[in-house]
Amino acid sequence: HAHQPNDVIRKIVLTIDTMNPRVKNVEYAVRGPIVQRAMQIEKELREGLKKPFTEVIKANIGDAHAMGQQPITFFRQVLALCSYPELLNENMFPEDAKNRARRILHACGGGSVGAYSASQGIDCVRQDVACYIERRDGGVPCDPDNVYLTTGASDGIVTMLKLLVCGEGASRTGVMISIPQYPLYSAALAELGAVQVNYYLNEEKCWSMDLSELESSLAEARKHCNPKALCIINPGNPTGQVQSRQCIEDVIRFAAKERLFLMADEVYQDNVYAEGCQFHSFKKVLFELGPEYSDNVELASFHSTSKCYMGECGFRGGYMEVINMDAEVQAQLSKLVSVRLCPPVPGQALMDLVVNSPQPGEPSHITFMKERTATLSLLAEKAKLTEQILNTVPGITCNPVQGAMYSFPNISLPEKSIKEAKALGQAPDMFYCMNLLEETGICLVPGSGFGQKDGTYHFRMTILPPTDKLKILLAKVKEFHQKFTQQYS
Amino acid sequence: HAHQPNDVIRKIVLTIDTMNPRVKNVEYAVRGPIVQRAMQIEKELREGLKKPFTEVIKANIGDAHAMGQQPITFFRQVLALCSYPELLNENMFPEDAKNRARRILHACGGGSVGAYSASQGIDCVRQDVACYIERRDGGVPCDPDNVYLTTGASDGIVTMLKLLVCGEGASRTGVMISIPQYPLYSAALAELGAVQVNYYLNEEKCWSMDLSELESSLAEARKHCNPKALCIINPGNPTGQVQSRQCIEDVIRFAAKERLFLMADEVYQDNVYAEGCQFHSFKKVLFELGPEYSDNVELASFHSTSKCYMGECGFRGGYMEVINMDAEVQAQLSKLVSVRLCPPVPGQALMDLVVNSPQPGEPSHITFMKERTATLSLLAEKAKLTEQILNTVPGITCNPVQGAMYSFPNISLPEKSIKEAKALGQAPDMFYCMNLLEETGICLVPGSGFGQKDGTYHFRMTILPPTDKLKILLAKVKEFHQKFTQQYS
Ligand SMILES: Cc1ncc(COP(=O)(O)O)c(C=O)c1O
Ligand SMILES: Cc1ncc(COP(=O)(O)O)c(C=O)c1O
Repeated sequence: HAHQPNDVIRKIVLTIDTMNPRVKNVEYAVRGPIVQRAMQIEKELREGLKKPFTEVIKANIGDAHAMGQQPITFFRQVLALCSYPELLNENMFPEDAKNRARRILHACGGGSVGAYSASQGIDCVRQDVACYIERRDGGVPCDPDNVYLTTGASDGIVTMLKLLVCGEGASRTGVMISIPQYPLYSAALAELGAVQVNYYLNEEKCWSMDLSELESSLAEARKHCNPKALCIINPGNPTGQVQSRQCIEDVIRFAAKERLFLMADEVYQDNVYAEGCQFHSFKKVLFELGPEYSDNVELASFHSTSKCYMGECGFRGGYMEVINMDAEVQAQLSKLVSVRLCPPVPGQALMDLVVNSPQPGEPSHITFMKERTATLSLLAEKAKLTEQILNTVPGITCNPVQGAMYSFPNISLPEKSIKEAKALGQAPDMFYCMNLLEETGICLVPGSGFGQKDGTYHFRMTILPPTDKLKILLAKVKEFHQKFTQQYS
Repeated sequence: HAHQPNDVIRKIVLTIDTMNPRVKNVEYAVRGPIVQRAMQIEKELREGLKKPFTEVIKANIGDAHAMGQQPITFFRQVLALCSYPELLNENMFPEDAKNRARRILHACGGGSVGAYSASQGIDCVRQDVACYIERRDGGVPCDPDNVYLTTGASDGIVTMLKLLVCGEGASRTGVMISIPQYPLYSAALAELGAVQVNYYLNEEKCWSMDLSELESSLAEARKHCNPKALCIINPGNPTGQVQSRQCIEDVIRFAAKERLFLMADEVYQDNVYAEGCQFHSFKKVLFELGPEYSDNVELASFHSTSKCYMGECGFRGGYMEVINMDAEVQAQLSKLVSVRLCPPVPGQALMDLVVNSPQPGEPSHITFMKERTATLSLLAEKAKLTEQILNTVPGITCNPVQGAMYSFPNISLPEKSIKEAKALGQAPDMFYCMNLLEETGICLVPGSGFGQKDGTYHFRMTILPPTDKLKILLAKVKEFHQKFTQQYS
């Protein structure tokens, strides 16, 4: 890649050749070329350009509010009170909302959410998180000193990877991630210069984790790098599975035996829809396996305000809990997070409300439960609907959406379309999704953006659009897939 | 440094020896050991421990609200409206606040600040930022596509450094930073494995930048690394100077001649107090130097909601503008920021209000101006007061606090105290500040945390405490310094 002539004239310092090559290696499909094209098309539609459709339907990103999901009233009342405490003098807000706001404000410097908090997060929020984790895990103890509030789960995940990753050549740190994966992981590993060690989820067994696959992936990786950590997303993105207790046990035993640091991405912990499925936190299972495991295996787990029933992505709230972390390393972690000063305080406040929601007897409890249940039931319905309709399409096979917010169906693509895509230098499923977008206005992300077994093709769609739009979307996908298959047969 | 025996027993993966060594190299004095000790002392006081003082006065961090500064009413009204749009139906808020909230909400996905925004930031906010910059810079054009909203200025600075830094050995990227510096820079460079190239500010000339110092620092650096960028903080942290127009011109010519990417940290742009001083943005001066410069020199400048008259640190709002950035590099920048999804939306909203504040004729204008002026005048008074009182202390010399929020006085330390500090393995000014803290409850940051000429000692104090507390603080520092000098003479 040569210097552009005008760079030479302009004597520019930072060019594609002189910039950090690791940044160049970063990919992030969820906001990649297909999404850029979708935004362009939206603009074209606004400018009056004629298309075979009148609106773009975006099912590319797990952004619930953008898809019309309503916020939880109680959360927003407290956030308004925290932003403008004058409102505490009005009698339009329920007492429990006011109490929560007073408690949060009292814990803020100068009583203002405009003050920096402690870098690890506001004390009382970390305490509330610890109580939540203990309740969730049936009493397994949680020390607030092990809880770090973060700028979304993304921030926590990247921070943990930063601590882990080092080395050059054959001693470069390897990090095991599931394929398909949420592309934050591959992006962060590329940026940090770590080795991405893939292990494949078993599509035939509803995207579960296979011990034998983990073993062979690790053995292979040990030949050329130093694998240190194993990342799991449960419930899964992009694959929508909920791992069984047995499976989690197996993974923990594997990590213990092989000395791997576990990173459990549990941002979808309330998003479980399928009968017979249940969320098991890695921490709880770890402790149930007894002290041989609970005293030894290092675990970082991540949560977020962005998903579950709240879907509050814009606030960038989240936390991580670290378990069995070496004390000196943890001191380094605390120092590292202090450089960025603190996570956004409104996001911390929101995280507090999530872990300390209205209780029975409090004035907001009934409304809160109604809203929460309605959102989760609707998601469960849409999960079912998506699976059912997609499975009626010849050439599309999809696992049940047991949890999270996504379906990741397998699509068979005709040979001719694969050839045409390759001729264009595109991944075949990117070619498919681009065509889908241009013809129907539906924006999905190709499976290649998340990783998949060679020779298989997928797309990821969220189940978040409102039911009527979701139905239109599914009908259009069905029609398109049939047409596309014919066209290239 | 050997493995702890219990690590061996616990078969731990991540130890101080196996972790990322770059993270270990990170230092961040603003929240370092002295602040931890201050927090401990606060706890001890709460627990009833007797001390020679009854409260800790923190002047260690530029956190205005924590020091009692009140938020701007208008900003908080709009933020409350954005958080809980039901409030738009109440008639307790002025129309201009409601209009701003409606406009921001309209630009959010699903009309909710709970949706992820575009990774670069909400379109209309970037447009407002661009208008603000044009106004500020007397009409120099600003393209909203060059504006990136960030999670505080910290995020923008680190992101730009990530793009710049690469290489190994003699081709490692060097980044020039002022000494004294704001330690985010040294911390980020350590984490990224870049070479920190120091240039010293001229304390004798009120912390101005010396061309000859820049030249010799660069020449020296070129012997062992590849210097690519030059960072300037103006108005200065920790040094409180405001650079003259001439000085900025010199720096730009220097950067052009030497092909350095400029990073201008202008988060204190409204914090200018001294007569005869004025804020000149690097961008404006760049354009006034004519096309030879304005078409060639690459510049990234940074702003924040955390400082100036608003002091809204907790919201983590900020922006950066990039100028003359290579198009391919900028595409890489846009990709990179997409991995973290988006900056906090409430922080973006706040940034919007800062750049689009109430205008004459709008209902909130008078109150807004009154609050803004009151805050800035009070800061100006405290800047003066701090300089005056400190300069009455024999052995303390301090430059005028022309801008920003800090004084960085030179302190002469008796030889005996220096020896004692060294015996304890402490920097002499750390020893001084620790003693000050233990004896008076005043929390300052030693100059060694920011860098200083060898053999000179300083501390940094903010001018943010309320006037009465600031007076107590200054009196106590005076008394302590005299006592300390006697004690070690
Ligand atoms: C599995 C997973 N982890 C982490 C994240 C990051 O979420 P956030 O940073 O908004 O908390 C997401 C977002 O989609 C996700 O799907
Ligand atoms: C010079 C300078 N730059 C950047 C920052 C970072 O501020 P924030 O990330 O809160 O915007 C600070 C904070 O004190 C600062 O003093």
